[in-house]
Amino acid sequence: MQDNTSWAGFRSQAMVSPASLPLQQRVQATRNAAQRVVQTTPGERAKALSAIATALEERQDQILTANHRDLQAAQAMVEEGKLTAAAYARLKLDPKKLAGMVAGIRDVVTLPDLVGADQWVRQLDEGLILRRRWCPLGVVGVIFESRPDAVTQIVSLALKTANGVLLKGGAEAIHSCTALVEVIHAALTGVGWDPDLVQLLTSREEIREMLGLEGWIDLIIPRGSNAFVRYVQENTRIPVLGHADGICHLYVDASAAPEMAVKLAVDGKVQYPAACNAIETLLIHQDCAPQLLPLLAAALRDKGVSLRGCERTQAIVPMDPATEADWDTEYLDLILSIKVVDSLADAIRHINTHGSRHTEAIVTEDLRAAQQFCQEVDAAGVYHNASTRFADGFRYGFGAEVGISTQKLPPRGPVGIEGLVTYKYLLSGEGHIVADYAAGKPFQHKDLS
Amino acid sequence: MQDNTSWAGFRSQAMVSPASLPLQQRVQATRNAAQRVVQTTPGERAKALSAIATALEERQDQILTANHRDLQAAQAMVEEGKLTAAAYARLKLDPKKLAGMVAGIRDVVTLPDLVGADQWVRQLDEGLILRRRWCPLGVVGVIFESRPDAVTQIVSLALKTANGVLLKGGAEAIHSCTALVEVIHAALTGVGWDPDLVQLLTSREEIREMLGLEGWIDLIIPRGSNAFVRYVQENTRIPVLGHADGICHLYVDASAAPEMAVKLAVDGKVQYPAACNAIETLLIHQDCAPQLLPLLAAALRDKGVSLRGCERTQAIVPMDPATEADWDTEYLDLILSIKVVDSLADAIRHINTHGSRHTEAIVTEDLRAAQQFCQEVDAAGVYHNASTRFADGFRYGFGAEVGISTQKLPPRGPVGIEGLVTYKYLLSGEGHIVADYAAGKPFQHKDLS
Repeated sequence: MQDNTSWAGFRSQAMVSPASLPLQQRVQATRNAAQRVVQTTPGERAKALSAIATALEERQDQILTANHRDLQAAQAMVEEGKLTAAAYARLKLDPKKLAGMVAGIRDVVTLPDLVGADQWVRQLDEGLILRRRWCPLGVVGVIFESRPDAVTQIVSLALKTANGVLLKGGAEAIHSCTALVEVIHAALTGVGWDPDLVQLLTSREEIREMLGLEGWIDLIIPRGSNAFVRYVQENTRIPVLGHADGICHLYVDASAAPEMAVKLAVDGKVQYPAACNAIETLLIHQDCAPQLLPLLAAALRDKGVSLRGCERTQAIVPMDPATEADWDTEYLDLILSIKVVDSLADAIRHINTHGSRHTEAIVTEDLRAAQQFCQEVDAAGVYHNASTRFADGFRYGFGAEVGISTQKLPPRGPVGIEGLVTYKYLLSGEGHIVADYAAGKPFQHKDLS
Repeated sequence: MQDNTSWAGFRSQAMVSPASLPLQQRVQATRNAAQRVVQTTPGERAKALSAIATALEERQDQILTANHRDLQAAQAMVEEGKLTAAAYARLKLDPKKLAGMVAGIRDVVTLPDLVGADQWVRQLDEGLILRRRWCPLGVVGVIFESRPDAVTQIVSLALKTANGVLLKGGAEAIHSCTALVEVIHAALTGVGWDPDLVQLLTSREEIREMLGLEGWIDLIIPRGSNAFVRYVQENTRIPVLGHADGICHLYVDASAAPEMAVKLAVDGKVQYPAACNAIETLLIHQDCAPQLLPLLAAALRDKGVSLRGCERTQAIVPMDPATEADWDTEYLDLILSIKVVDSLADAIRHINTHGSRHTEAIVTEDLRAAQQFCQEVDAAGVYHNASTRFADGFRYGFGAEVGISTQKLPPRGPVGIEGLVTYKYLLSGEGHIVADYAAGKPFQHKDLS
């Protein structure tokens, strides 16, 4: 969603106190339901997911009817210029798309089951066993765009990992989301699960309330515009999985292979310009700029890309000038800024200053330059001779993507199902006390797995 | 440190803007130094640590002289009742304690080297290799009590993991910390390292400035009183590794072995009552309370523990009454509150309501009860028939403890050297572009390690 402006008004408002909110009680119900799900086996969770998939197939008409209501209202908004054609397309369901959603749920069933598994087991001493065991986060709040397919994607990942989930979709999808959640609730009830495990929030006011529920909600995943993600990050003390900006660079080193540089620049900018992992700025070493810039500019312009260059770039290829602001701008569009740099070190400095720590790439035949770039660039993904567009949970082989994080602490980069779990330490003894070890008894610290 | 009150005044003050601070420039120098350390090998980092250990041995007199200055001032504070004898003891250095600090540095050298190692390697396709590689956080800020031994502990862990570090020790240890950092700087210079890698902050004002430096500092580790840790958590957007409270429980189940229950209660409360993993509340099942409470009370009172009980507890063993506030109080002292609960579920509910998610223990011979307790209690550590006092990085076999975290997302519980590192994704290709895969080329996703 691109409604960057519509969230701006929220920023100046104070955070809501968690006390005495009706939402809090509903979240407590979700927490209670989630606590019971912790005790289910992977097989039982698979059964619940399969029941949801089947119910969606059986009640396809109900879902498409609800979606039709959303589409009618959306159509009017498109005509008034309040909604883009792309947003309308994301909102629209049809039997094929619904079948894809059902297939997606069945794919999640086949992902590895982390919850309940031990990361490692260590014998601290005879009879004193420490386990680090994967467990669910508890309750996850997901705020997403007006796209109904997000509902089944989020719910299946949450249930797979034994979490409760609060869903808040875009207003345009309200009837579709309501119908989907109704079907999911019926399926959960059918297998004996508490439907409170999945709750749909329907008002924007509830987003503000959610953000104040520290201690009741364990993770917030905001999807949507940069402005919205930043609003969420700045207005909650609940951990947030998400990223506000995706200012990615391709650096063309002095020893880059010309054809490869052109190929990676075009893919990085053109293949899907609205993605967060598309490149926004091309950096090029001064030694190869005279030869390569004309090739790069021609190839990019051929694909409809508008170019903005620094002075040295303009001296080689005439184009619009880039201002200082361009180095900090995520265009999400067919626009690319270009800067000639003095050296590899200069490129790294520019990236570490202006990049958003998302994904950065170097194209070079010089392995030492690639190594230095990979070590010194501070980003979740650092690539050598590959397109930044590979930064994606599915392309990384995670089977699912919960979000992309540009924070420095783990989880970082594209986050798969691992982003919905944590661990706890389980220690089992036979009456072991610390006084004995304080008095000199040694630990064994023997890894059992 | 126990100066809970002295931080209270900070809370009402606004956060400091990061702009135009001289500290920011100093932190930038540390960042630059840290970026060069990323390129060192584990062997080079071991050499730097060994040089520090040797320098501390050689310049012992200088350090003890500086410590003597701190001790003179502290002695006056003890006499005026402004400093406890325990705090004085923590401040005091002598040749034996210094030798222990040097040995600690050499122990850190022997810990596993994470930085630069790959967590896993996956072939996405022919020639397209993805690595998830451990890397340092960057710059870590550590705020600690007036204990000089913390300096060498923190610096050795930071350098082991190729991080830069900002140190702020308690005011009473200023001369000791300054001397230690001087010696460390000289040792770093001696092996050709930039001494800016380790910076000592000396004023309290700098703590406030530090907390505003989001983006320049990657992690804050606050040590000290609960009030101080909470102050830090509430006044920064930098990730914080630490915990404000340690309200831990021991639950004596209906089928607990009486002797074991007594042993675990005494160890949990008495072995080191000021520790965060000491128990504050004992919960006991109504069925065994009449038999066990008298035994427990006698054993605890024998060790000087003051008891405060709920009404049902008082009916069995006369003692002071516990108020509602007691269930939320961390005494850090030889005081224990006791509550009779109706059931295992009641105990779990009490813990999940009043506990601080630190470490919780059940004593029972009933494996199903233990399993339910371990699954449903929401805490970093959940123990069966073992003392809560085992919650500690050294006892867990981590070789070091960076801190204990009670947040739910990893890292959670006692955090070893893993708390000072993160990872990045390195992708190396041969000009691979996403357009090919979008057009139908399949990924291999073959795990190479």
